Amino acid sequence: MSNDETPIRFGIIGCAEIARKISRAINLSPNSTLYALASRSIEKAHNFAIKNNLFSDSLKIYGNYSEILDDPFVDAVYMPLPTTFHLHWAILAAEKKKHLLLEKPTALNVEELDKILDACDKNGVQFMDASMWYHHPRTGKMKEMIVDSKLFGQVKAIHSSSSYAPGQEFLENNIRVKPDLDALGALGDAGWYCIGAILWAMNQTLPTTVTALPNVARNSAGVILTCSASLYWEKEETVATFYCSFIAHETMDLRVYGSNGTCYLYDFILPFGEDSASFNFTSGAKFVDLYIGWNVKPEVVEVTSQLPQEGYMIQEFASLVKAIKFSRSKPESKWPHTSRITQLVLDAVNKSIDTGFQPVHM
Amino acid sequence: MSNDETPIRFGIIGCAEIARKISRAINLSPNSTLYALASRSIEKAHNFAIKNNLFSDSLKIYGNYSEILDDPFVDAVYMPLPTTFHLHWAILAAEKKKHLLLEKPTALNVEELDKILDACDKNGVQFMDASMWYHHPRTGKMKEMIVDSKLFGQVKAIHSSSSYAPGQEFLENNIRVKPDLDALGALGDAGWYCIGAILWAMNQTLPTTVTALPNVARNSAGVILTCSASLYWEKEETVATFYCSFIAHETMDLRVYGSNGTCYLYDFILPFGEDSASFNFTSGAKFVDLYIGWNVKPEVVEVTSQLPQEGYMIQEFASLVKAIKFSRSKPESKWPHTSRITQLVLDAVNKSIDTGFQPVHM
Repeated sequence: MSNDETPIRFGIIGCAEIARKISRAINLSPNSTLYALASRSIEKAHNFAIKNNLFSDSLKIYGNYSEILDDPFVDAVYMPLPTTFHLHWAILAAEKKKHLLLEKPTALNVEELDKILDACDKNGVQFMDASMWYHHPRTGKMKEMIVDSKLFGQVKAIHSSSSYAPGQEFLENNIRVKPDLDALGALGDAGWYCIGAILWAMNQTLPTTVTALPNVARNSAGVILTCSASLYWEKEETVATFYCSFIAHETMDLRVYGSNGTCYLYDFILPFGEDSASFNFTSGAKFVDLYIGWNVKPEVVEVTSQLPQEGYMIQEFASLVKAIKFSRSKPESKWPHTSRITQLVLDAVNKSIDTGFQPVHM
Repeated sequence: MSNDETPIRFGIIGCAEIARKISRAINLSPNSTLYALASRSIEKAHNFAIKNNLFSDSLKIYGNYSEILDDPFVDAVYMPLPTTFHLHWAILAAEKKKHLLLEKPTALNVEELDKILDACDKNGVQFMDASMWYHHPRTGKMKEMIVDSKLFGQVKAIHSSSSYAPGQEFLENNIRVKPDLDALGALGDAGWYCIGAILWAMNQTLPTTVTALPNVARNSAGVILTCSASLYWEKEETVATFYCSFIAHETMDLRVYGSNGTCYLYDFILPFGEDSASFNFTSGAKFVDLYIGWNVKPEVVEVTSQLPQEGYMIQEFASLVKAIKFSRSKPESKWPHTSRITQLVLDAVNKSIDTGFQPVHM
């Protein structure tokens, strides 16, 4: 098998629900293969493999996280562990020279993330967080239209939301709201996407200030269930707001307001369906005479895709890993940078909440 | 002619561009008629009538605002004057027992508005601000669906925008940005709608706090060209944000996030076209298995209408006036209340801006 045909061998560390989706994507992506699975017990890993039709003679099953990292045939790991465990296991993975696809939120704070990124850097492994939507071809098409200064102009304002309402049992007991597991709560789980989308629209530049809004709700353990914030870019005079929640109806909004155009969609994190995805775009809208209507209606831009978005993510990640493994390329710095500024803003939102909604200067 | 068939006789005070649209609506509405026009000169009023095909033998033309108010046959006046002149002319209209349809923003501040409302109250005349979108049947249909607790649940968050980019000449010279004419700038002109829409979604209850966001832009005379704010209802834990601007692409967004549903539209102030109007509604959305899509897509709810929305506004206003005139009804208090809390929040946004974006407690 030539290098071009050698698939990247993935190990999955932690058999979380989301790993079902990623294991499917690893098998769908043409340049990767699911090589190994690890859980805290052999049985759990085994059952996961059977339940998801992953079981085969070639699949390695590990009953702990250390052994999978010691397996020399594992090129890369996907790590959907609770956030608290990222620091330890992500650093260890990097030290074992495993390329790292890490679930979001990447860490409890940027100090932790920096330790992870340092470890990746020192060990020459690729880092990427597992925010899938960046990799959908729709996202690229939107960017192409937003950066077109004639079509869209400058970004003036952004609004995003990420919410779902999984119910009372979840709000007290799910790992996403446990202070010792995912202490960032809805901000880390749902807000991560909003912050990421806003920074994406602003070409990954940090805002001047970040200010949380007062609608913070917490569960009995003090973990955030709902919050909002505003971000402000002083030079550009651009404002962004977001809303994230575990107690509101499912939404995934991104709305980008430009000086000459508007771009929006309601399923930016997870497309309504896998077969096609779309967004709305309006450019050069004006009132018609007598103010009885608009000259244009929003155009629906459809984007076809060959893979689900997580398949594109795996394909992109695996191709970066292949370039490092076979062509001595350097890891792509765009992805750690993207994660890092998302985490920085997330930390700022938390800090603003903790200081009574004071603006945090970045 | 029986009372039921007698149309309400409107006088228009000020031949602004928007009066073209309202004069058309007065003629379209079945219970009203355009009886008189006043401008600062006879010629201007005359030309306006000719240009808009309003001229007839029965149309009275006045070259000043006082005379039209002295005409005993004028039942009601529509007043699209610059905001600075509202206090004087609106009070005078009320004292002359003219029912008052006043353009927004209603006044430079709530103290002024209260004087206008007091005058209307004392003189038993109907007050309404000329925000047309409240009267579109689409708005009623949305409300019906939002208040359905099964379908929508509780309102958790709201986002609204109102923007357009009329160009550089406008930004320095239009009456909407002149400190001596419309000192409230984009906040008064465009932000009025956002605040109104947010309060509409919250059943006209005042927020606990109002906080402006830092993206304030002004012209050389100091008039606001762009601003944003957040509103917070403590008891309901509901947050709202809005963005208004004279320097961003044309938008008219309203997005209401509920605990079990989402309602949104992009042309809430002025429908894309007059023939039909729609909004999007989603209820009970969930991830499908494996998180590869949604169980439901937003439903497009189409609402047909017999009149343009400003026609419905005139019809509603005229029917209230008829009830007062012929059936000794009291003026409907809903409309002054709606205007007043909108103005209160607008004032709070201004105060928050002036105090360096401090929260204003309502």
